[in-house]
Amino acid sequence: MKIALAQINPTVGDLAGNARLIISFAREAASQGADLVVFPELCITGYPPLDLLDNEAFLAAASRTMTHVAASVPESLGIVLGCPLKNPSPVGKRLINAAVVFEAGREIGRASKVLLPTYDVFDEYRYFEPGTTGRPIEFRGLRLGLHVCEDMWNNEEQADYHLYAANPIDELAAQGIDLFLNISASPFSHGKHERRNEILTEICAEHLVPFVLVNQVGANTEVLFDGDSRVHLADGSLAACAPSFQEALIMWDTDAKPRQCEMPHDRIGDMHDALVMGIRDYVAKTRAFEKALVGLSGGIDSAVTAALAVAALGPDHVDGVTLPSRYSSTGSVTDSRALADNLGMTLHEIAIAPAVESFEKMLSPLFEGTAFGVAEENIQARTRGVTLMAISNKFGHLLLTTGNKSELSVGYATLYGDMSGGLAVLADVFKEDVYALARYINQRADRELIPLATIDKPPSAELRPDQRDSDSLPPYEVLDAILERYVEGLEDVEQIEAATGFERSLIERILGMVDRNEYKRRQAPPGLRVSAKAFGMGRRLPIVMKPTFREALALQPTTDA
Amino acid sequence: MKIALAQINPTVGDLAGNARLIISFAREAASQGADLVVFPELCITGYPPLDLLDNEAFLAAASRTMTHVAASVPESLGIVLGCPLKNPSPVGKRLINAAVVFEAGREIGRASKVLLPTYDVFDEYRYFEPGTTGRPIEFRGLRLGLHVCEDMWNNEEQADYHLYAANPIDELAAQGIDLFLNISASPFSHGKHERRNEILTEICAEHLVPFVLVNQVGANTEVLFDGDSRVHLADGSLAACAPSFQEALIMWDTDAKPRQCEMPHDRIGDMHDALVMGIRDYVAKTRAFEKALVGLSGGIDSAVTAALAVAALGPDHVDGVTLPSRYSSTGSVTDSRALADNLGMTLHEIAIAPAVESFEKMLSPLFEGTAFGVAEENIQARTRGVTLMAISNKFGHLLLTTGNKSELSVGYATLYGDMSGGLAVLADVFKEDVYALARYINQRADRELIPLATIDKPPSAELRPDQRDSDSLPPYEVLDAILERYVEGLEDVEQIEAATGFERSLIERILGMVDRNEYKRRQAPPGLRVSAKAFGMGRRLPIVMKPTFREALALQPTTDA
Repeated sequence: MKIALAQINPTVGDLAGNARLIISFAREAASQGADLVVFPELCITGYPPLDLLDNEAFLAAASRTMTHVAASVPESLGIVLGCPLKNPSPVGKRLINAAVVFEAGREIGRASKVLLPTYDVFDEYRYFEPGTTGRPIEFRGLRLGLHVCEDMWNNEEQADYHLYAANPIDELAAQGIDLFLNISASPFSHGKHERRNEILTEICAEHLVPFVLVNQVGANTEVLFDGDSRVHLADGSLAACAPSFQEALIMWDTDAKPRQCEMPHDRIGDMHDALVMGIRDYVAKTRAFEKALVGLSGGIDSAVTAALAVAALGPDHVDGVTLPSRYSSTGSVTDSRALADNLGMTLHEIAIAPAVESFEKMLSPLFEGTAFGVAEENIQARTRGVTLMAISNKFGHLLLTTGNKSELSVGYATLYGDMSGGLAVLADVFKEDVYALARYINQRADRELIPLATIDKPPSAELRPDQRDSDSLPPYEVLDAILERYVEGLEDVEQIEAATGFERSLIERILGMVDRNEYKRRQAPPGLRVSAKAFGMGRRLPIVMKPTFREALALQPTTDA
Repeated sequence: MKIALAQINPTVGDLAGNARLIISFAREAASQGADLVVFPELCITGYPPLDLLDNEAFLAAASRTMTHVAASVPESLGIVLGCPLKNPSPVGKRLINAAVVFEAGREIGRASKVLLPTYDVFDEYRYFEPGTTGRPIEFRGLRLGLHVCEDMWNNEEQADYHLYAANPIDELAAQGIDLFLNISASPFSHGKHERRNEILTEICAEHLVPFVLVNQVGANTEVLFDGDSRVHLADGSLAACAPSFQEALIMWDTDAKPRQCEMPHDRIGDMHDALVMGIRDYVAKTRAFEKALVGLSGGIDSAVTAALAVAALGPDHVDGVTLPSRYSSTGSVTDSRALADNLGMTLHEIAIAPAVESFEKMLSPLFEGTAFGVAEENIQARTRGVTLMAISNKFGHLLLTTGNKSELSVGYATLYGDMSGGLAVLADVFKEDVYALARYINQRADRELIPLATIDKPPSAELRPDQRDSDSLPPYEVLDAILERYVEGLEDVEQIEAATGFERSLIERILGMVDRNEYKRRQAPPGLRVSAKAFGMGRRLPIVMKPTFREALALQPTTDA
């Protein structure tokens, strides 16, 4: 039997567009002789649909769209679709997260997602009632172990958050199946490809049946899906592999002699491709922007952001603006110009002194007698923000913010200043990785796209004379190590101290900065997620809080006698 | 037996401070002769702790704080505390949401929350494993039906989201209890007081036992808790009532002759008190701000925001700034001055023309040949934003934003302009209610705090000559009616058309504006929540989406023959 894996890029909420996309892939699969074409989880609505699932009219239309799609593909072709459907029970959440198999327009079986991820960026129990593991579905002589995404992830790795009571994989295998069929919307993060390899190899080794995984690809706002669809044979070896970060239709013939495949992956290369896809899809799916706009400082973050934007949209669809102030180094403009020339993009230059001086004059009666400080630094950053947003509003450009995860962690960024924009490209990339991306970009182009002067200069916000990031922050290799353990590893002071040997007072100072700057991150634009713990919807902290637990650990009983 | 209801205002994450607060209330209860003192849900951590619950060190400290508190109250006093505790089972989520009864420092019983709200602002299944209904807990001869918050809310009203399979109230009653004891962190929204009355009267009527409800009070970032703790007798009548929106310790003697109580509530009055509490707690709990700052336009939104801030913090802790431009009416300044005089607050005046003109000059080469439009309007709003934020940064003031829910819904607000600030006071108040608040404020003060000129003038953003809100929006009574049904009622075009008779094209236009402006709201400061569906953490929509379901409803099967 020939199975087609349709790794598509649906747009959230775009029922009509997704229907056209699915039908077109299905017809292509049929023309290649497929018996069955398989689409990703919730492919009808796109993933994640979030609170669109609270809209009754949307739900009715989604279900109707599924029926329409099933009736619109060639009769000879079986099709597996993912769609939110009404929970048949009156008790519980209103919906189930369903995988439905159709043959000749008629439903011949369905699975209801059993394990509902409700952690990090996932909120599935907000909408869906968990199903119970269903029976194998018979299709043209094969018994399919159909299930949805998380249903295959009941393992120790998720134990940080929880361990599920049910195990759909074991329960399906126990009933006797010919292959596992998993439809997913499983997001990209560092190392996810390798974790999929591991867990699927384990499952095949345990149950000795092949495993077909079809995953969504593309970006929907901040969440990036890599695809990485594949077929593992019963011995765990890969018999079909889809490329990551792009749509693909790949075929697997259950009766054909196996051909091995392999997809080489590289941490920084994957991050690059994920971010490029994130920018491209934001622009393509909103259809609201002719161009992207990047404020160029001559520094590494804006250079890498611009290079990624050019890779995503082409040089004619990215404009740079250099906005020198009295504190800007010469390199601020010359390195920006070199970058723009290397990338082939247009560069505008607008000196910000006139507006900065106007603000200072307007505020001078009120500020009289005070010293130059954060207020004055921020006026510069915000003057740049206003200028860039004016260009964005005037010409309909998407302003990209350039701040990295290290800065965003410790609040080294100005709200309504350099944090202004529609999409935060590097918000989930630590500074050390920004450098790695810059080197990768030059290496891949085999020439100096990002000027070496930009890579080599010491990082500075250039908001006061001779300012350096190192004036107020530890070296980035130290900072990033602490941040990665705190923000991504969920470790606290003791563990970080034990693991790194850094000074306790430094660790406490950095963690305090992270906690105190939650208010800035709450107002940040959505950031492209490339780690397992990004700021934004996957990390939800109160703004008003006092994490006094170190103080509380010293509390002693104080009963009055 | 004397039961003390301790309606306290904990701060999220402030374990040490919450411990001190609880101990002080407990001692006061003991001094008034209480046998048992009851505190709200998760009183040790404050509610909602959000992803602080992912921090192991925090969890360990919370559990230790609970033990410390229990050991620190007079031995004669029983105490009921709420705390996140380790799930004793290795399977499932790592925590339970527990209510624990202590006597003489020893645990004598506990309940684990059964119904975990996971909708709107609630994410409890993200952290907690559901419990099963426990046995009644015997305390000094009384059988307590102890349970947590949502456990009493298994009723038809929640059916919009789900209907629970378990019913802890019925299950406790079936075991024979002397009273229900509910510890809650149940947020305020319009009509919540009345809904609590209804459901508790029903429960008492069905089970014929008294009901004690102890609820958290105070604001934690955007979520407002009204308290409204009370005791219903077996016949449903109220025997003890705590005031709303303030801390209180109220006593109920199970053996005393019942005294009836009643708390009058008023929709606009409650909203006023809730918002005042929200501002006060934001400032008090962050301890980061000496003053609040409000940009005054002479219009109704900024006037009401300033009046609420003065009610919360006192006139010496609120500064106003009037920022006239070339398009500002005379009233912009004179009405702001009258307001500041009425409220007794300081007013600064800073004309924004110098910076606006600088921006226009800086941008003129790029903007040459284009017409005055949104870009130029936004430069004005953003110049005000930069000016206000400079004052905020210089003097450590909390900038309050003044936009209302109607504007925020349709995107009638400038990102990084009038949307700049730390707290959005009116973000969940529709325009018609802003007017009602203004009238209420004057009525309550029995004088004209908010100038009548401000109340009577037609709403305008004053960003171009003779601009009026009504140039681009329908009258607010129409707009608000549509928005309330769409945003809060989750209705769609058909339902709104049927209910209101408004033109379909108008409804579609407004709904489209709401959908398209999600990107602005994602970057808005936290807004004080007073309705059952506020923007922010309780309403999660994708930015990149295409709600094409009306188009999809017209899809017809298109199989090729």
